[in-house]
Amino acid sequence: MLTLSGAYPSLRHPFELEKQSDECPCEPLQRPDRFNKEELARWMVHSMDWGVLTTISTRLPDGQPFGNVYSFVDGPCGKGMGTPYFYGTYMDQSFHDSKQNDKVSFTLTEASLPSSPVCARLTLSGKLVEVNPDSEEYTRAQAAFFQRHPQMATWPSEHNWIIAKLEIEDLWLINFYGGAAILSIEEYFSAKLSPDMQLERL
Amino acid sequence: MLTLSGAYPSLRHPFELEKQSDECPCEPLQRPDRFNKEELARWMVHSMDWGVLTTISTRLPDGQPFGNVYSFVDGPCGKGMGTPYFYGTYMDQSFHDSKQNDKVSFTLTEASLPSSPVCARLTLSGKLVEVNPDSEEYTRAQAAFFQRHPQMATWPSEHNWIIAKLEIEDLWLINFYGGAAILSIEEYFSAKLSPDMQLERL
Repeated sequence: MLTLSGAYPSLRHPFELEKQSDECPCEPLQRPDRFNKEELARWMVHSMDWGVLTTISTRLPDGQPFGNVYSFVDGPCGKGMGTPYFYGTYMDQSFHDSKQNDKVSFTLTEASLPSSPVCARLTLSGKLVEVNPDSEEYTRAQAAFFQRHPQMATWPSEHNWIIAKLEIEDLWLINFYGGAAILSIEEYFSAKLSPDMQLERL
Repeated sequence: MLTLSGAYPSLRHPFELEKQSDECPCEPLQRPDRFNKEELARWMVHSMDWGVLTTISTRLPDGQPFGNVYSFVDGPCGKGMGTPYFYGTYMDQSFHDSKQNDKVSFTLTEASLPSSPVCARLTLSGKLVEVNPDSEEYTRAQAAFFQRHPQMATWPSEHNWIIAKLEIEDLWLINFYGGAAILSIEEYFSAKLSPDMQLERL
């Protein structure tokens, strides 16, 4: 059986180090009303630090789906364009899988925010696309990662970290009760989380 | 586009109601040493309340993977056999998907436990299988759900709730640092979380 190894550096587990600091680098943005669905989705993508990235497994037989926890950003604190970016390596199973099939989904829940009173659920589906390391988009995305997940800046370079983004093709939201809503991608991208929020393209 | 509706009852969002009570129905079991991988996996499956269930989407094109947040149990408090059980309905997207393709995975992370110092990640893969509603297994699983997620007992019966279980075929764990481990299914099922722990088959 293939076991990918060394995806994360020894004694530098990303989560553990991030947990050593209780300070959140971002001021939380106010949660939109639950019935403003596109705004709620944008708020989730901007406010949350991690979710579950799913791929079609290349390790398991029969094209089985495979979920894996990933940190992400959609821009620096208080800014962001709604597209999730991932800091990873092809040594990790999910990025490895995506080389064979770039169709993925990324699932978020308010249950990951301990202080949140309700639990909206959002799944974004689309293609996982590597960002050109020589682009301005890469430089800006890396700066956002290092601001919001500071320990990533200390991860050793021999792991060949890359940045990939989810090109969103579908948005599935359960905002409160009743059934799921399929959101308009255009309205999602044009939603503003607060009157003075700056949208920053990565 | 198909949008499944009414998966959860109006004004009775499962998470919200469960959050109204701060009391956890179970006494937490002590976390095993991180290097006892099978025990750590068993502890995660017994201690955690929710994870992300992934299916092959029947709604999205091209067999895209789809992740969805699900509550689960592997048995009553302090007991349990390691198999995740889900209380759901074919009105919900994931159960609907599983009718076409029963290959799923279920992803857990210690990041879902706010008090946890580290973040192990576990993905269980296998088949999602409906439990016969006339069986003792169903009765015992339902009792475990109503103990650990008390509001489920109030969900209205017209949603045709069913109980399904994940028949585990693969266990993928990142326990701390370094690469992922593929666990022995036999050792996983024979692991005991504490000397006096009772294993209870559902």
